[in-house]
Amino acid sequence: MQRTEISKYGEFGLIKHLTEKFKNENESTLKGVGDDAAVLDFKDKKVLVTTDLLLEGVHFDLVYVPLRHLGYKAAIVNFSDIYAMNGQPKQITVSLGVSKRFSVEDLEELYAGIQLACKTYGVDLVGGDTSASLTGLTISITCIGEADNEKITYRNGAKPNDLICVSGNLGSAYMGLQLLEREKIVFSANSEAQPDFEGRDYILQRQLKPEARKDIVKSLAEKGIVPTAMMDISDGLSSELIHICTQSNVGCRVYEDKIPINYQAVVMAEELNMSIVTAALNGGEDYELLFTASMEDYEKILTLEDVGIVGHITKPELGLHLVGREGEEIELRAQGWNSLE
Amino acid sequence: MQRTEISKYGEFGLIKHLTEKFKNENESTLKGVGDDAAVLDFKDKKVLVTTDLLLEGVHFDLVYVPLRHLGYKAAIVNFSDIYAMNGQPKQITVSLGVSKRFSVEDLEELYAGIQLACKTYGVDLVGGDTSASLTGLTISITCIGEADNEKITYRNGAKPNDLICVSGNLGSAYMGLQLLEREKIVFSANSEAQPDFEGRDYILQRQLKPEARKDIVKSLAEKGIVPTAMMDISDGLSSELIHICTQSNVGCRVYEDKIPINYQAVVMAEELNMSIVTAALNGGEDYELLFTASMEDYEKILTLEDVGIVGHITKPELGLHLVGREGEEIELRAQGWNSLE
Repeated sequence: MQRTEISKYGEFGLIKHLTEKFKNENESTLKGVGDDAAVLDFKDKKVLVTTDLLLEGVHFDLVYVPLRHLGYKAAIVNFSDIYAMNGQPKQITVSLGVSKRFSVEDLEELYAGIQLACKTYGVDLVGGDTSASLTGLTISITCIGEADNEKITYRNGAKPNDLICVSGNLGSAYMGLQLLEREKIVFSANSEAQPDFEGRDYILQRQLKPEARKDIVKSLAEKGIVPTAMMDISDGLSSELIHICTQSNVGCRVYEDKIPINYQAVVMAEELNMSIVTAALNGGEDYELLFTASMEDYEKILTLEDVGIVGHITKPELGLHLVGREGEEIELRAQGWNSLE
Repeated sequence: MQRTEISKYGEFGLIKHLTEKFKNENESTLKGVGDDAAVLDFKDKKVLVTTDLLLEGVHFDLVYVPLRHLGYKAAIVNFSDIYAMNGQPKQITVSLGVSKRFSVEDLEELYAGIQLACKTYGVDLVGGDTSASLTGLTISITCIGEADNEKITYRNGAKPNDLICVSGNLGSAYMGLQLLEREKIVFSANSEAQPDFEGRDYILQRQLKPEARKDIVKSLAEKGIVPTAMMDISDGLSSELIHICTQSNVGCRVYEDKIPINYQAVVMAEELNMSIVTAALNGGEDYELLFTASMEDYEKILTLEDVGIVGHITKPELGLHLVGREGEEIELRAQGWNSLE
């Protein structure tokens, strides 16, 4: 494979080379890459801003994450935060720190993934830069989105008796990660070993090429549902429920047998002797949407595709509990990934 | 000095601890830290977005940069990009990657600098996160600003016969850096040596605690001047003139004896046997404003404080030249800092 040194382009040349294939599509994007700042026009819409810093060795492992997938995922993670506000992502900026280990072709792969994500979700790349790093790869993405005033959904609006809803299924991305970690160990012991990925494509995809739930935000709008609170599930259901309940000053009951789980994830968990419920509660990186909605919207929610009701909001004094299959109540605790500990 | 390990707080606790002293002041800041995204309302103004990634060992050296100064400068650099669009910075997000080498007190220092910059320039901190890093310190800042439709100034509007103007003076930050680098070498040879900084406070401040030219943007508005093109000078006058001339499809003549230089910078350059003009043209990190304005605004420009006219824009076929003290013409070349080479 061809290897072009980054120094061939220089800083301004490189960012131009990497971004020139991107085409702006949004009306709100007046000026993208190439000035001191991007210029955007949201008229009477509210502006949403979220940012994410990804560091090699901490947030991703290039041993098993292809750069194209990494670029896609780095973008998706930010889009997901905007959908979690019931908004639409519109622009991103991408800043990279890259060591000499990386070639121009490597960065083209990374940007190809970012570009695919942008195209799929209708987002414009409007800025950023590329600079040298002494060690590894650093990716910083900021996403700007818009939302109608009457649709923005915060974390603090959940009310007692609201329904707790979850899109898709939980724990699959975590089980995909466990599979990759296992195969990495096998491979490091025997470099001729072929990874055993048969029948596990779904959990791998959930880990390596997750999607943000644009479709759910669209469905909510079509059905006329405005959630009372919403978050994306990036650190596990427990952690996110604690955020919503704390900020809304409410309690919750979530039912173990209602938590949506995928079959491949169950099989993987059994094989690794892990609890799939623990993975769903604390695993992270699902990028599904967790939202609460008024009981008045119950009938409408039943018509939402790929959304399940997992519990309900209570008064704060009732606390935060998972109700097990035998009816036992277990207090929810945040065990989401905490890379600083 | 007290040392509190970062792990004491955990990820969410740490960002809350570091940001809780920040108070939002801008009407456009509807919701800051603490949800999936910040929520902003710019009504009929245009939205400006700029982002900057700073990596330890590449963009800063903690041997001689105090963390408080680093925080201040990291914020200022972004504000400067917004002023360069003739806009006003309003919000920032700050993401940090920190290794275990850093304590909570270290990060408090860094945030104290960011907070001082925010307060001085009227900017709100609205988001970001803190995560572990395997190596050193990574700072990613995104700044959001606003501008009136009729005032936004791009790089591509310079016209033949326009005046070329520069605020403040150039090359001082670079000479401050040279001084710090020299004292670092002296110190590494003899750790009891005291740095020799007497009478050099100005160039040190320009390097360690630069300011963004909010005052110039204010003066332009007061005098009713809308520049035809503007940039901030972060990579040296040559590099920025080339950007403006290329994007505007024009040429330029800049006069060596018109380039504003500070006395301390001249003395330092002589001592180090360097050319102060080269430092002004290629040194970088001045964060002064370079702008072009119509000849019709000539009288008004003369009334601007701390702004000098350094040359004029020409037709593109006349090229980009520096006119030396003897009248000789030297082609301008970009030799700005290029950390990727």
